[in-house]
Amino acid sequence: MDQCEALMKLIMEAVKNGTDAKTASEEKPESGAIPVGVSNRHVHLSAEDLEKLFGAGYELTKLKDLSQPGQFACKETVTVCGPKGAIEKVRILGPVRKASQIEILAGDCFKLGVKAPVKLSGDLEGTPGITLVGPKGSVQTKNGVMIAQRHIHMLPSDAERFGVHDGESVCLEVDGMRGGILRNTVIRVTEQSGLECHLDMEEANAMGLGSSSTVRIVR
Amino acid sequence: MDQCEALMKLIMEAVKNGTDAKTASEEKPESGAIPVGVSNRHVHLSAEDLEKLFGAGYELTKLKDLSQPGQFACKETVTVCGPKGAIEKVRILGPVRKASQIEILAGDCFKLGVKAPVKLSGDLEGTPGITLVGPKGSVQTKNGVMIAQRHIHMLPSDAERFGVHDGESVCLEVDGMRGGILRNTVIRVTEQSGLECHLDMEEANAMGLGSSSTVRIVR
Repeated sequence: MDQCEALMKLIMEAVKNGTDAKTASEEKPESGAIPVGVSNRHVHLSAEDLEKLFGAGYELTKLKDLSQPGQFACKETVTVCGPKGAIEKVRILGPVRKASQIEILAGDCFKLGVKAPVKLSGDLEGTPGITLVGPKGSVQTKNGVMIAQRHIHMLPSDAERFGVHDGESVCLEVDGMRGGILRNTVIRVTEQSGLECHLDMEEANAMGLGSSSTVRIVR
Repeated sequence: MDQCEALMKLIMEAVKNGTDAKTASEEKPESGAIPVGVSNRHVHLSAEDLEKLFGAGYELTKLKDLSQPGQFACKETVTVCGPKGAIEKVRILGPVRKASQIEILAGDCFKLGVKAPVKLSGDLEGTPGITLVGPKGSVQTKNGVMIAQRHIHMLPSDAERFGVHDGESVCLEVDGMRGGILRNTVIRVTEQSGLECHLDMEEANAMGLGSSSTVRIVR
């Protein structure tokens, strides 16, 4: 196979032509349009778990701000290890939280060998634990593994405009070739929110959505 | 990181407890229920491309039959190489076809650096090409790269029962926590079909569906 690999390398270089990989629909914002934010698998850590994984007194390094005020992606990553396999380089999102939370994709369940329920962020009841490995140690979390339930962050003024309230479940209309309706999308109203519908990468890919797409609430 | 890797190995072994990774909803078949078939990325090869990749006179080795009569998964895999990256061990489905066709997931577009349209199997118009690498050589396909459009295989008798016709586009009702409606699902009627709705892995994961799930046609 060495020859094959060498061949592959040559070919890879030869075909590097910078084709644009963007598949997101590029809709213009319109009245009622809610911007989509696409999440890959990620981890939120408690202060205690952060120290176990990265060392005493360690502080997270901000890589970039996220759309929700105060939230940021970190330089740091961890390895998530389940009974059947591991996923490396899973991004940590800061700041630290009261409890560690591991948000994976449905497809990751097979690889890790863990059965994650679909849950709203922060609702750890009934979620399984998993092993996290960092450069300075590992932790076996008691719980916190979930597939994030899709939700929409908004301000009270947005909620009024859309005629919805915090905790309400709505349906999303998705346009395009892979369009349709996504039920059970939870409204999350806070005083500091960027209007954004959070879907995970599999949901976005399945529906032909990207980070420049928009969706609409329907009932 | 050596210490960390050793630690990880130990932990991996310690936590091997055989947790079931099944996330599919386990519905009982009911009237109007259509079984779901979930496809991962895969490749169909022309006889010509098969020979270029595996050698003159090479024949595909059946690994297992698929639900559609005559179709089978092969022992053989290829590496799919785009301008930005490669995906190894992509399964070949047999038998050989008139033209090679590379069915990828929307998420693969980013990794490969290729912009694949959503297309019905067999409709290669406007699809880009890509490089396939096998143990005996490589081919740069002229076209054939697509994200498979969801569709339902059925017999004429099924079509009559559901009140649909070949080529018609229908909506699918999906139950459960991640449920909703999937539009633009194409009916494919042939004299030799197993009744099955083909979704790709991202569509199935996004909607909480697995290979023991069912969906229903709605209009």
